[in-house]
Formats: sequence, C-alpha cells, structure tokens
Amino acid sequence: MRHEALAAVRRGPEPATELNRQTDSARLQHVIESPQFTVPMLMELFDRSRGMERVVARGGTLDYQNKILATLFYEPSTRTRFSFEAAMHRLGGRVLSTEHASAFSSEIEGEQVEDSIRIIGNYADVIVIRHHQEGGAARAAEVSPVPVINAGDGDGGQHPTQALLDLYTIYRERPLDGLSVAIIGELDKGRTARSLAYLLAKFERIKIFFVSPPELQMKPDILEYLDEHDVNYELEPDLMRVIGEVDVVYQTRIRPERVGDAELLRRYAINSAVLPHMKLSAMILHPLPRTVELDKLVDGDPRALYFRQAANGLYVRMALLTMLLDKD
Amino acid sequence: MRHEALAAVRRGPEPATELNRQTDSARLQHVIESPQFTVPMLMELFDRSRGMERVVARGGTLDYQNKILATLFYEPSTRTRFSFEAAMHRLGGRVLSTEHASAFSSEIEGEQVEDSIRIIGNYADVIVIRHHQEGGAARAAEVSPVPVINAGDGDGGQHPTQALLDLYTIYRERPLDGLSVAIIGELDKGRTARSLAYLLAKFERIKIFFVSPPELQMKPDILEYLDEHDVNYELEPDLMRVIGEVDVVYQTRIRPERVGDAELLRRYAINSAVLPHMKLSAMILHPLPRTVELDKLVDGDPRALYFRQAANGLYVRMALLTMLLDKD
Amino acid sequence: MRHEALAAVRRGPEPATELNRQTDSARLQHVIESPQFTVPMLMELFDRSRGMERVVARGGTLDYQNKILATLFYEPSTRTRFSFEAAMHRLGGRVLSTEHASAFSSEIEGEQVEDSIRIIGNYADVIVIRHHQEGGAARAAEVSPVPVINAGDGDGGQHPTQALLDLYTIYRERPLDGLSVAIIGELDKGRTARSLAYLLAKFERIKIFFVSPPELQMKPDILEYLDEHDVNYELEPDLMRVIGEVDVVYQTRIRPERVGDAELLRRYAINSAVLPHMKLSAMILHPLPRTVELDKLVDGDPRALYFRQAANGLYVRMALLTMLLDKD
Repeated sequence: MRHEALAAVRRGPEPATELNRQTDSARLQHVIESPQFTVPMLMELFDRSRGMERVVARGGTLDYQNKILATLFYEPSTRTRFSFEAAMHRLGGRVLSTEHASAFSSEIEGEQVEDSIRIIGNYADVIVIRHHQEGGAARAAEVSPVPVINAGDGDGGQHPTQALLDLYTIYRERPLDGLSVAIIGELDKGRTARSLAYLLAKFERIKIFFVSPPELQMKPDILEYLDEHDVNYELEPDLMRVIGEVDVVYQTRIRPERVGDAELLRRYAINSAVLPHMKLSAMILHPLPRTVELDKLVDGDPRALYFRQAANGLYVRMALLTMLLDKD
Repeated sequence: MRHEALAAVRRGPEPATELNRQTDSARLQHVIESPQFTVPMLMELFDRSRGMERVVARGGTLDYQNKILATLFYEPSTRTRFSFEAAMHRLGGRVLSTEHASAFSSEIEGEQVEDSIRIIGNYADVIVIRHHQEGGAARAAEVSPVPVINAGDGDGGQHPTQALLDLYTIYRERPLDGLSVAIIGELDKGRTARSLAYLLAKFERIKIFFVSPPELQMKPDILEYLDEHDVNYELEPDLMRVIGEVDVVYQTRIRPERVGDAELLRRYAINSAVLPHMKLSAMILHPLPRTVELDKLVDGDPRALYFRQAANGLYVRMALLTMLLDKD
Repeated sequence: MRHEALAAVRRGPEPATELNRQTDSARLQHVIESPQFTVPMLMELFDRSRGMERVVARGGTLDYQNKILATLFYEPSTRTRFSFEAAMHRLGGRVLSTEHASAFSSEIEGEQVEDSIRIIGNYADVIVIRHHQEGGAARAAEVSPVPVINAGDGDGGQHPTQALLDLYTIYRERPLDGLSVAIIGELDKGRTARSLAYLLAKFERIKIFFVSPPELQMKPDILEYLDEHDVNYELEPDLMRVIGEVDVVYQTRIRPERVGDAELLRRYAINSAVLPHMKLSAMILHPLPRTVELDKLVDGDPRALYFRQAANGLYVRMALLTMLLDKD
C-alpha cells in the first residue's frame, strides 16, 4: 500500500530503512500521509501543541531564528499557507513563500517537482508543499535533503496536517477512544475527510458515519483500510438519521454543481434547523472555507468549533515543525 | 453616515461602544476611513512619524519582533504592500504576505471576506486589507479579532493611510490651518482624493479647489460632508485659473480614456508649462503611479515632493502600526 | 559599449565618476552585467563565498538584521528568487517579495520601472530585479538610491549572478586560467551563457567552444568582445567533436520547438551515451531548470555538479550582498 511505501522515503543521502510510521516520534522525517502517525506520536504532537498555545498566549517566540521554512504552493491557498508561515514566525524562524508556483515557475513545461525540491532543499530547512497531483508530496519527499510536509496533494490525495489539527480540536474537548463521528460532504474528492478517517482508525471503539449522496461516497481504498483495522463505519445517505447520536459533526464543502438538485443539497447542510437535533455535547467542525453547507447562523452556537479549529492549526503546525527541526 | 457606523466596529469579543473617531489615540482600533481621525490623533501620529524618521535614519529597528502583520491584498499593489511590509520590518516585526489574494484564494466562489479575516486574525497581530469592493475593509473590521487597516477599498471607497501620509508631507513643510489646495484628476473615482478631502476638513480656514472636467467631478457625498463642516471649496474645470494661488497642487491620475479628447487631457497635466505659474512656495504632490498627467520633467523642480511623499509613507505607516499594536 | 556606460550609473544623489568595473571591490555599487567584475573583485567575492559556506554549515546567521532586500520580479522565477531571499535570511536580514510584479503591479499601463525603483528604494536597502526587457536592470540602477542587482533582463540580456555562481563552482574544483569550456544550447537567447562568456574572458588561456546549431549560435556582440579580449573560441555545431577535450560541459536548455527536428535535438543532449566520451576530471554544469537536454540518468555521475552549483548560488549571493551592503 502506498502509505507504507511512503514511510521508507529517505532523508538526506542515506536511505531510511525503518518504516517511519512504525517508530517513535524521534524518527519523524517527513509528513506525507496521516496513517504514518502512531498514537504515541500523536500524543507527543498534542502535548507540544498545548505548549505552543501557551507560547502564543504570552506573546513570545521560540529559538528557531536560524531556521527557514519554504512554502511551495503549486495550488494557491492563503489560509493554509498563512497558517504554516505564521507557525514558523511564532517559532522565531524565517519564511520563503510562493503564492502560486504552478502559474509562475514553469519557465519550462514539463519541469519536474523533484528538481525544484533538490534545489530549494539547499535554501530552506523544511519545505511545505501543496501539489495539484496526487502523490506530488511523496515524490518531493523521496529526493528532498530536508523534511517535507504535505499541505494537500490532488483531489483524491491527503492533507495530513488538516487531519492532525482536526483531531487535536476534538482531543482538547474529550477522549478520542469511543468517539462517534459523522463525516459529511462530497467524500470522494475530500482530502481532509480522507486524512481524518485514517487518523481516527488509530483509536479504539471509533464509529464513523460517512454521510453523502451515494455517488459522492468515500472511495473503497479508505473503506478497505478501515476494514483491515477493524473500524466500525457506515455509509449513510441521510444526515438526519445519525445527527442525534454523533459526538462530532465533521462537515466539509459540497459544491452545488456536484449534487445538482438544490433540495438534495439542502439535506446535507448544517443550519439552524439541524442544531436542535444534535447532542448538547456535540462539536461542529469544518475545515473551511465554506459555502452553503454550513450556515452562518450556526456560528453563534457554542457547539460551533470551526474557528477554534482554525486557530488550533497554528499550534499544531508549530508543534509539528519543532518535531521535524529538533533533530537537525 | 457610514464613517460613523464604522467607528463602532468591535475589536475582540467585546463590542466597543465609544465612537472611535471621537476619542483620543489610545482608542485607535481599526483604520478604515480618514474621517475617523481627530486632530489630536493626527498630531500624535505625526509626532510618532517624526520619531520613525529618526529610527530609520540611524538604521535601527524597534522592539516588535514578536508581532506579525498580514497583508491581504485582493487587488495587487506592489508599492502600497511594500510600504506596509517595510514599515513592519523596520519596527522589527514579521510579515505574512499575499500578492493577489482574489486571483488565488477563492478555492470556492462566494467565499466571504469575513471568514478569511476570522481565520487570519488567529495568525497575525494586525491585518492590512485591500479589497476590490467598497466597504470591504469595514466588513473585515466588524469581525476581526485584531486591528484592520484599510489599504484601499473599491474605486469609490477610501485609502486612509495614503491621505495620512499626504497630510504628513504637507505638515512637514508648513502649518495645515489656512491651507489652499487644488485636488486635480478624475475625482469621481479617486479614493486618495476622497480620503484627503475628509482629512483637510479637520483643519481651519482650508480652501479646496476640485479641478476636473465636470463629468469626472467629486461626488456629492464628499461635498455634503464639506458643507456640514463649513469647509470652503469650489468645483473648478480650469486648472490655470487656480494654479497661481494654491499652496498644494495635489495631482492624481487621469486615465486618457476617461477624458477622451487629448487636448482636454493636456489641460489637466502638470508639466513645465504649468510650473512658472505656481507659487514658489507651492508643493506638488501625487500618490503615484503616474502616467501622462505628471511630466517627468517636473521631477527636478524643488517643489516636486512626490518621491518624498512616498518615503513618508514608510514613517507614517510605522507610526500607525505602533498606535494600533501598543495597546496589546 | 553598453557595459561601460553602465559602470557609470550613479548611486544616490551624486553621480559616480569612476568606472565601476575598473575599480576594486570597495566600489561595487550595482550588479548589472558580468563584465563589470574585475579579477580582484571576483577573487574577493569567491573568498567571501567560502566564508559563507562555513556560516551556513554551522547553522548561523550574520549581523544584517536591520537590512531589507526587495525582490522585484517582473518575470517569475521561484528558484532564483528563493536563492536571493534565502541568502538575505541567512545573513540575518529581511525580505520584501514579489512573485510576479508585471502581472500584478500595473494598475496603470505604461508605468515606468524608474518610478517603482525610486519608491521601493525608500523601503529596501538593496533591490533584486528581474525584468522582461533587456536593459531593464540598468534603467533601474540609474535612478536607484540603493544597490540594484540584475537577476535576469530579457532573452538577450544578462544574468550576472548566475555567471558568478557558475564560475565559483568551477573555481572550487580547479584554477580558472587555462580552462577549456563547451557552452551548449540555444545560445542566441541564452542570458546565462552570455554572462558566463563575459566572465571567462577575464582569465588567461581560456578556450570556449560555443556548441549549437548554426541558427541558434551566440550573437556577434559577445564574439566581438571575446575578439577584443584575445579569447580563443570556436563555433562548433557538433558536440561530439569537442566533448572529449573540455574541462567544463556547460549545458543550457534547448526548447524542442526551436530545433524542430527531434534527431537534431538529441545530438545536443547530455545523457549516458555522452558520458563515456568526457574527461574523468570534467564538470557538468547546468543553470537549471532542465528538460530533455540533460538526462536524469546523469545525476548519479560524479562529474554532475549542477545541484552543487545551485547550492553555491546561496553562498555567492550572500557574499555579493555583503559586498553591496557593507559600505552603507
């Protein structure tokens, strides 16, 4: 499977023979796909993230003033890029930035990401890459002399740091074992949904409802992974049948043109009509940005955690950068 | 009126009940429209700006190394963006930057600026926004957990920091009370002209000539504001009738296609034919960039202050940032 | 000749009367074209570059924390921009950045680079410019109050810092006098090839083979310059005739559409069929990015120095920045 092959990507001139995902956090070399994280690595990440909350709250920075992070975004995403760059700045470090590398750096068509990474690896201590092709980040990691972080690769790819901050947001509220989660949206193209499903599978007694019109449901590769790891899940077309029993409502975007019928689209929205049916202790998450699938009237509900979730992205990314940089 | 409603925009979780523009500088929360500034606030700003000139002249930086400024430019403007970013760097601080957010950040059409600001407000300590829609900056300020600075919003909107540096440039040369100013250009779409007119109205015995072809003249909202504040102004189609009596010639761009007739266009240009008619003590200002309306041959004239004006942008923006950040 | 006129560009309000290229390094004011460098200046640059290697190797930064570099790229080039920006960061300094200024900063058509430079010269201590027009960097230097570095201007222009790092890469391996070099590619449009040829002419007993289909050969201006400086060169259409006798194989990109015939194109490629014919002590250089003209199978050959060459760009640009900034 691809996520195991990935774990063997080498860092520096010597190939790493250990499987990254099966070892402790001291071995974290690249961040490519969420399954690579073990539970102890996640717990160390979350401990460090709590510490970063305190660093930011007291307005301090850390001691990484000689470290450079490069953001290499072949697809633009201001929020994700700012989150990584702010994390590096709050650590005291420095940033090289691209807003839209694929529009601008192809003096030559057919230029390979591998050459760019080999060169930029001389200039930066860690590279954050968002690539338009699935597997782009793994290709980068294979040749990079410095750690690579996948900030999203292709519609069917992953977005592991989003999943890490999603999970941290839940973890700050309650234990992860025994969690019941509804993941809603156009799941076949949802890289955040995919990455989160992989991470949830690490914990005990998890129940996942994939809530989506059947034609947009989660792809078989994820479902097979969940089967292999004995995770309890259901494919559910009707949100209202599960909304009352889940601890987490994980909403993702639904592009109207992919659902077609406006009436059908409305059945997957979180709005004030849905709120009374939810548990009082439930959490509403959304990776943002949103359109019609998450009504602004929900913002005032105490269960709406999506802006805190975005803030947590800063702490989790700071923590992750320290885990990657501390070994240098 | 909108600039009064604006003053009540809240900062942080608690709504601010005082009207921002009617209080002293300690209450400066956002910078959205030039009328929000009182004369004492302007004087404090200009005092601080003088101090910043000295900081830059001795090659130093200040103590803001843990502060982050984010530039969120939905319309590109390299000069304005660099001016803000350089100001933050000269203060010792850090920068998150967008060159053209509207081209690049709309993974989803219809995404609202409010959500972006709520998220970026977690990453930065102050946000500079240039928005393509009038009122975009005010919408941002309403939800932002950190100070927002309007760097231009829409053709009919404002550009308050430009007006502040314009006024500072004049103030460095002579007292503001009793000033006579010709504001020239396509004034109906001129946000720098609009913002400057609001600021001039704060002072005593001001005389403003709005010099423009009638069809491009200043809009009624500004004229009504000047009437309410007992400011003496005239709408003047003929530059030569006023050029000899004004202390400040404030030229702005005129797009040839808006005037049509090349002969008519020439009558609004500042060039070596106009210079002999101006007062020896006059100042020529222009927010730049320029095209045909300001001839390069004017650059050598001692009354040409427009490059010093651009340099003053650095000092005024440094000063403004300290006024916004010092309360944290 | 243009490169001599250039040397007289003024820095600051006073015109510089000395010819820059005829004086020692203390007089380095702008970096516009490679001929401006004398051999003593090159030697000082290379000494400083060696020192920078040590600074980077021990993870340190230098003492330029109050200096700001602005990258003004009218044409995008992520690698070159990152190289300059990383150099400034490794010196401890700060960066203002544009990814694609010509797409974004022309609120007004016809805006002149001169005005932009006059303004940005107030915000930054050194400006790196890549301009789409030949001579764009020289025009910038003429009006700039701070040092300007040419990072490429037009297809027929120069890219002097590329040539400096190319030469440094060779110098790290062997003495420059007596060197035999094949410069391969579409040389009529090759600004890196042009800039390197100018630099090689500074040294003794150099032999240059310009290897290219006749219709893409080096332009007469370079050849005249080499004649004037008594440099031995040949125009050679057949790579295989010289590959065995050169110390340096300097490959540059060849766009397939400019050669037309695929069979002809293949005759200018460096690949595993060519390697056995090269000297064991030869060096293979390429400014990157590459396409078909440099096969990935060459990467593992010990003579392939092009990734080290890219890394040297960091050290040489750090050294160059210190030579420009130290006089302030």
